[in-house]
Amino acid sequence: MALMSVLTPALAAVLCLVIGFILLKSREPETQTSSTKAPGKDFRPWVDQDLQDDTETTAREDEDDGWVDSGEEDLPHVPYTPRRYPQETMLQRSHEFYALMNQRRSVRFLSPEPVPREVIENVIRTAGTAPSGAHTEPWTFVLVSDTETKHQIRLIVEEEEEVNYRQRMGDKWVHDLAKLRTNWIKEYLDVAPYLVLIFKQTHGLLSNGKKKTHYYNEISVSIACGILLAALQNAGLVTVTTTPLNCGPQLRLLLKRPVNEKLLMLLPVGYPASDATVPDLKRKPLDDIMVHI
Amino acid sequence: MALMSVLTPALAAVLCLVIGFILLKSREPETQTSSTKAPGKDFRPWVDQDLQDDTETTAREDEDDGWVDSGEEDLPHVPYTPRRYPQETMLQRSHEFYALMNQRRSVRFLSPEPVPREVIENVIRTAGTAPSGAHTEPWTFVLVSDTETKHQIRLIVEEEEEVNYRQRMGDKWVHDLAKLRTNWIKEYLDVAPYLVLIFKQTHGLLSNGKKKTHYYNEISVSIACGILLAALQNAGLVTVTTTPLNCGPQLRLLLKRPVNEKLLMLLPVGYPASDATVPDLKRKPLDDIMVHI
Repeated sequence: MALMSVLTPALAAVLCLVIGFILLKSREPETQTSSTKAPGKDFRPWVDQDLQDDTETTAREDEDDGWVDSGEEDLPHVPYTPRRYPQETMLQRSHEFYALMNQRRSVRFLSPEPVPREVIENVIRTAGTAPSGAHTEPWTFVLVSDTETKHQIRLIVEEEEEVNYRQRMGDKWVHDLAKLRTNWIKEYLDVAPYLVLIFKQTHGLLSNGKKKTHYYNEISVSIACGILLAALQNAGLVTVTTTPLNCGPQLRLLLKRPVNEKLLMLLPVGYPASDATVPDLKRKPLDDIMVHI
Repeated sequence: MALMSVLTPALAAVLCLVIGFILLKSREPETQTSSTKAPGKDFRPWVDQDLQDDTETTAREDEDDGWVDSGEEDLPHVPYTPRRYPQETMLQRSHEFYALMNQRRSVRFLSPEPVPREVIENVIRTAGTAPSGAHTEPWTFVLVSDTETKHQIRLIVEEEEEVNYRQRMGDKWVHDLAKLRTNWIKEYLDVAPYLVLIFKQTHGLLSNGKKKTHYYNEISVSIACGILLAALQNAGLVTVTTTPLNCGPQLRLLLKRPVNEKLLMLLPVGYPASDATVPDLKRKPLDDIMVHI
């Protein structure tokens, strides 16, 4: 009887602890290394985050944790007097640039015809003039013209894209792409004279091995991509802006990029194929995209 | 004695349940509506996400949950034969465009001088030619020239930015910005003839009230921003690409934008002030941003 009066509460306590432990473990988020399940309603692998509202912070004071002084804070400020045009010229230039860019389309059928390398280099230099958070310039443009490497890229992308189309993306996404007539076959990866793989640097590395914060790196690299697209269009070249889902890590390894670089976009670049087609899409008029207050 | 042998395990059980409940509640992520605590090591309000590896899915089948057919999948495909230039012209054009864009700097000191509205409209039309996930065109450009509204924007931004600089951003971020000599005073918000607030549409709304998925909306809108910057530079106008942390919801309400729109960037636009300065920053050379395979 005395033994029971000790054992019973002890057993009850153990049972509750076990239940509590199980509940705790079930609260931890699930991570999956290979996701081939069908998606549900909140499936958003492109990551739709609200920058402005994401203000979760911890109460811990900022400590010396390896982030170091880049030594740039004592920087002179110099006068800036850029070129200015008369108003009529501004109107003309802005109109012509709009006409040029309005002709740009995403092209999935490229010619194998070679493109002068210096043109591509100028285009990438131009992309590098983009603004970036705290001037971190958190981009790497990997330019691939080697035939075997392009083919390896194609194998990786097509394998993952087939899984994407058949499983991961879900009926809705596949359906929304139907008008573009895309699928997992990406012939342009073999055919295009150049592939431009745009990597974002999630953080920088200083010479002493310490980390450097890359604020808004994804937005900065995307802005650079927009400038790259303008430069391509200006030079008479075409591309399609692709974001091959799930291919990033394999491509990073193939191209021997460091762990702080993550693939953001893949652009095949060249002239359009002679029989290239595009879906007959229309763009929204100004009143649909602009509000004036 | 019999009572004790019932009470003791009961008390033990209750105690364990209480402890388990407390542990459960402590696992829930903290959300703060007004975050003024000092940031910790993993503080990244700009949201650094790896698109490619974020493939968490649920096992639930995709059901009819209100997402509807946009009716566009039966779309003709038409030949696309854009303008092409001789190689020498390509070299010249690509070089000149690089030279133009390399002169672009972020300018925080603007003139109040008016800018022709049609030029701004052409610039925004040009931004609207950007590619977008599944051609969703998930952007709204709010153009503000009204003096009182600009002032309201300034009040909101400066109030939040002061908190950002003093508390939320943390010593490291403030330090990394030191070379740019920025602070929470944003005079350009009153002075610039136009403010362009770029909103991303996190999803679309069809006429029947159903939702439309906006794939990769943040990347698409950032790409559009890059094209907008090129258009401004081409027209002889200046801006600074700002991402005012925590101001989004207030600005959305002020400008009466719907709940599916979230502020991504705020660009004051105009001519530079006659005494405008910029930090004497250098851009990385091509070999630092490009790898050729």
